[in-house]
Amino acid sequence: MRQHLPRVAVPRFSTYLRCLDELGPGIEHISSDRLASLAGVSPAQLRKDLSYFGSYGVRGVGYRAGVLRDEIRRELGLTREWPWVLVGVGNLGRALAHYAGFAEQGFRLVGIFDIDPDKVGTMVAGQRVEPLESLARAVRARAARIAVIATPAEAAQGVANLLAESGIASILNFAPTILHVPDAVNVRRVDVSSELQVLAFFLHEAAVPAP
Amino acid sequence: MRQHLPRVAVPRFSTYLRCLDELGPGIEHISSDRLASLAGVSPAQLRKDLSYFGSYGVRGVGYRAGVLRDEIRRELGLTREWPWVLVGVGNLGRALAHYAGFAEQGFRLVGIFDIDPDKVGTMVAGQRVEPLESLARAVRARAARIAVIATPAEAAQGVANLLAESGIASILNFAPTILHVPDAVNVRRVDVSSELQVLAFFLHEAAVPAP
Repeated sequence: MRQHLPRVAVPRFSTYLRCLDELGPGIEHISSDRLASLAGVSPAQLRKDLSYFGSYGVRGVGYRAGVLRDEIRRELGLTREWPWVLVGVGNLGRALAHYAGFAEQGFRLVGIFDIDPDKVGTMVAGQRVEPLESLARAVRARAARIAVIATPAEAAQGVANLLAESGIASILNFAPTILHVPDAVNVRRVDVSSELQVLAFFLHEAAVPAP
Repeated sequence: MRQHLPRVAVPRFSTYLRCLDELGPGIEHISSDRLASLAGVSPAQLRKDLSYFGSYGVRGVGYRAGVLRDEIRRELGLTREWPWVLVGVGNLGRALAHYAGFAEQGFRLVGIFDIDPDKVGTMVAGQRVEPLESLARAVRARAARIAVIATPAEAAQGVANLLAESGIASILNFAPTILHVPDAVNVRRVDVSSELQVLAFFLHEAAVPAP
């Protein structure tokens, strides 16, 4: 029996999808070597990943780009709409609210919330910012499935608690802090400091011989 | 002979460091179970990672938090300063420029660049925005080691080319596109769409039985 994609491979499939989207509809076929190179993985890894879909690859011709794109979208669950809410409208929150790419991919922003009375009622990306007290009710009424936290670190856990109580199952956390949530809630964290630290480590490793 | 930390473990060490920092200087000892729980890894994974440093753990007492913090910082290369430049001052770029946490961790912002003449010359986070033409010279003159790209997707590759020519070895890319750079340049990508797709996949997986 076929299984779901392995979770650990999901970010790679997301990358393959981005590459296929960037190639545009003009490309009918793509070789595994070329797609692997675009995605920054080894050809062996790519072929292993795509073998999950069965054998779309044709020797000397490659994969049918459109078929592969549709297959990845279906497997990732991107053929339906995922309503999401945004909490926190500092510079980062604004950037996220304005990013048109989300809507194209089926992520529909259904509410923007902030605790700051000066921000509540203002318009961001065509939506009126609502107070934090409205969050739980709005999540349920609008069937939001994903919440994005873009608050300062010290506010994030409180927001996560509200979200967990409101029944949100998925949180993407941009606040530079580690959230503690019930097991039923999936949290992904975008930690920009951590990304910089990894780059610093590469530089450090190159500059300093191993101790 | 001791080796550098394995690259794949670096993001975890970064998380341990964040947890230790959040505990604050008041905590002298921490058990492996507690640190693992805070970091969201298994106790076995944590003990395996920390065994790299030798045996700091004391049975019934735990790890000495301050010693562990210092050791991780040294191994990650965070005991020195890493000058970085920012390219692109939309909402996201502004958020990054204002994030004080970077400076605390030794990431010193030494230049902000944009292609838009309306933005050049304005002040962002206490620095004057410079034109893109000044980027390569500034990178060399100020010994910048890391560049953060926060431009729209269509501008990012051109910026990456400029950066590669200027000798930058590390790029953190927020633009929703895949960059192609010489092998000598390390690129890390923060792809918010991809993070949302991973969360969508988890929801999809929970809602739909495997085919």
